[in-house]
Amino acid sequence: MFKVNDNFTKLPSSYLFSEVARRVRAYTEAHPEAEVIRMGIGDVTRPLCPAVIDALHRAVDDEARGETFHGYGPEQGYGFLISKIVEYDYRRHGINVAEDEVFVSDGAKSDTGNIGDILSRANRIAVTDPVYPVYVDTNVMAGRAGELQPDGRWSNIEYLPCTAENGFVPLFPTGEPDVIYLCYPNNPTGTTLTRNELKGWVDYCRKHGSLLLFDAAYEAFIREDDVPHSIYEIEGAREVSIEFRSYSKTAGFTGIRLGYTVVPKELKGRDAEGNLVALNPLWRRRQTTKFNGASYLTQRGAEALYSEEGQRQVRETIDYYLANAAVMRKGLSEAGYECVGGVNSPYVWVKTPKGMTSWESFDRLLEDYHIVGTPGSGFGPSGEGYFRLTAFNTLENTVKAMSRLKK
Amino acid sequence: MFKVNDNFTKLPSSYLFSEVARRVRAYTEAHPEAEVIRMGIGDVTRPLCPAVIDALHRAVDDEARGETFHGYGPEQGYGFLISKIVEYDYRRHGINVAEDEVFVSDGAKSDTGNIGDILSRANRIAVTDPVYPVYVDTNVMAGRAGELQPDGRWSNIEYLPCTAENGFVPLFPTGEPDVIYLCYPNNPTGTTLTRNELKGWVDYCRKHGSLLLFDAAYEAFIREDDVPHSIYEIEGAREVSIEFRSYSKTAGFTGIRLGYTVVPKELKGRDAEGNLVALNPLWRRRQTTKFNGASYLTQRGAEALYSEEGQRQVRETIDYYLANAAVMRKGLSEAGYECVGGVNSPYVWVKTPKGMTSWESFDRLLEDYHIVGTPGSGFGPSGEGYFRLTAFNTLENTVKAMSRLKK
Repeated sequence: MFKVNDNFTKLPSSYLFSEVARRVRAYTEAHPEAEVIRMGIGDVTRPLCPAVIDALHRAVDDEARGETFHGYGPEQGYGFLISKIVEYDYRRHGINVAEDEVFVSDGAKSDTGNIGDILSRANRIAVTDPVYPVYVDTNVMAGRAGELQPDGRWSNIEYLPCTAENGFVPLFPTGEPDVIYLCYPNNPTGTTLTRNELKGWVDYCRKHGSLLLFDAAYEAFIREDDVPHSIYEIEGAREVSIEFRSYSKTAGFTGIRLGYTVVPKELKGRDAEGNLVALNPLWRRRQTTKFNGASYLTQRGAEALYSEEGQRQVRETIDYYLANAAVMRKGLSEAGYECVGGVNSPYVWVKTPKGMTSWESFDRLLEDYHIVGTPGSGFGPSGEGYFRLTAFNTLENTVKAMSRLKK
Repeated sequence: MFKVNDNFTKLPSSYLFSEVARRVRAYTEAHPEAEVIRMGIGDVTRPLCPAVIDALHRAVDDEARGETFHGYGPEQGYGFLISKIVEYDYRRHGINVAEDEVFVSDGAKSDTGNIGDILSRANRIAVTDPVYPVYVDTNVMAGRAGELQPDGRWSNIEYLPCTAENGFVPLFPTGEPDVIYLCYPNNPTGTTLTRNELKGWVDYCRKHGSLLLFDAAYEAFIREDDVPHSIYEIEGAREVSIEFRSYSKTAGFTGIRLGYTVVPKELKGRDAEGNLVALNPLWRRRQTTKFNGASYLTQRGAEALYSEEGQRQVRETIDYYLANAAVMRKGLSEAGYECVGGVNSPYVWVKTPKGMTSWESFDRLLEDYHIVGTPGSGFGPSGEGYFRLTAFNTLENTVKAMSRLKK
């Protein structure tokens, strides 16, 4: 009889957001009068900006006429979008990225999950802890994680704790990992690394032959000068790093789906015989074989983001969320909470009070203040003792939530 | 140093459509006066139908207002679409499929490519020959194909020839494969299997414990009564088969991307210890971890296909293509070519004249008749000696192409 991929059977149920939803539902059913403010899920709430809406309508009309109809597009994305990415996201920041190094996709979750297809199962992985669960779970599926230990860690994955003790700056690995995932601005902590700190990581990878998978999904939230927008701002990064970008948080594309991945031509790994193999053609082959391009509509929508109005409108939306984050930082601090993030990120990472666990703190937030957060322990063992709040609610609700905490 | 997935380095360059494009370009540059008719690529050309266009505009407007904005949707698809699929694509044909057995995605190419994620690398694969190259290439990437032989076959894949000699009906495998890919109506031959023939395959899989991956991307083209629209019309298929469906050819969604996959709850494989493991939760876990849902816009567009106007408009478009196919079958036959397909399919599979190879025939079609086809050998060793023509051009051009062949 045919056999399943056993690695899937090792995965514990992913219960974080479903357990959050269950507890919220139970509470609101028991207390229908409670006005619950949701600051848990990392999804945007502001509508798409007018420049994108106009472009989407035009693209729909293109699909209504034979002369302008677009069927299968290039699997790696349309030139009209890629040329804008290369110009606005890179060249204007002093970075050279070639058009055939950019691969447009339906989102960074797909790409960070699928990138393992082109890597050997024998690679050892390192992740920061807490971490976006996709990095870990997809490596479990691929058979790279080993066994789940009682402490919640996988035996073949090296965890790099990011906690108040080290200022949320991960130490370098000790186990010589082959592949290192970094997400900055970070999900879930909202913290960043400076140019010099990122240079340390690029240098580490160059010295040790490690691949740096750099998730820059929250890049658009960066407002401080010393925080790089792209890993390629760091000298030598093209030889060691793949960068993932997303329009989800940048422009509210969580529902219409778009992202892209940059695979520089200098980036090479080794095959089993020790020969150097470039990753760019491998990813191209993966995408042309297992993916059929992102929606024409969404690619036209993204193109409009690079117009003058598009750039201004997107910045206004992100400024709105960042204003919420500033309200949260101030409110939390005045209410006696320690927190980080929220400056170059929509996420604020909060230390639970009085040594509570993440879930105890979740329940207290919900029951005493009618605020929904996300328990930090859901993001990994080092997330225990924290919870995450997001800036994606309205300003009005954000102000209201903070005034509740201060009471 | 980190290691790449060696299996990628075994893949020969995929040169079929790029070589076709190169030869067409060279010819048209040398003969700018030639009016070339393209019947090679399997992409639709008719615009999206009005019901879909209206729904897409409404969905774009939803994304313009905070109250109707849709961010992250369910990874497995929205209920508003899944309920329509269950009702119209299955229940009305007498088939019971549950809503949580349907997984909406960005297309059947992604799903047929990604399905291998939940299967052991140790499974042996069988494919019909000629075949949609994605089935073979994705198994090469996963390490299931073995080595490429001089005859163009992979050592660990069993090929089931479909040629004029066996009436394009594959014989049952002899090598006890664990996983069998069938695509009916077939790409590239345009042939179908009868209900009784498909029952033979389901029975084979039940007896041998094989998984049947059934690609029904061309289902909407079926016009004959004895050709099942779904593998689940066959008794017992729920225990052995996954079905892939696509809106690409059904409704012209090649550019806006949508498909779905059905994984019945009865379907089980074995883990390494021999325990039975249901595939439905495995695919759910794969999709929720490595995919973030299809575009909200496209899902609203697909929903509109199930309205009365949508159903009528889609049928009109497919009838248009099928009328082209009928013109092709008649014209080819009158011109002395042997061909199959084109009755329940947009593809006509043509025997090359006078023992020519597929590429010789391609060149002659282009140079003598200014018609672009696809060389059958690009779809596998048993495609040698054939070429594929598609019904996706205009009626006018299709008529013109056939009258050229008759001269």
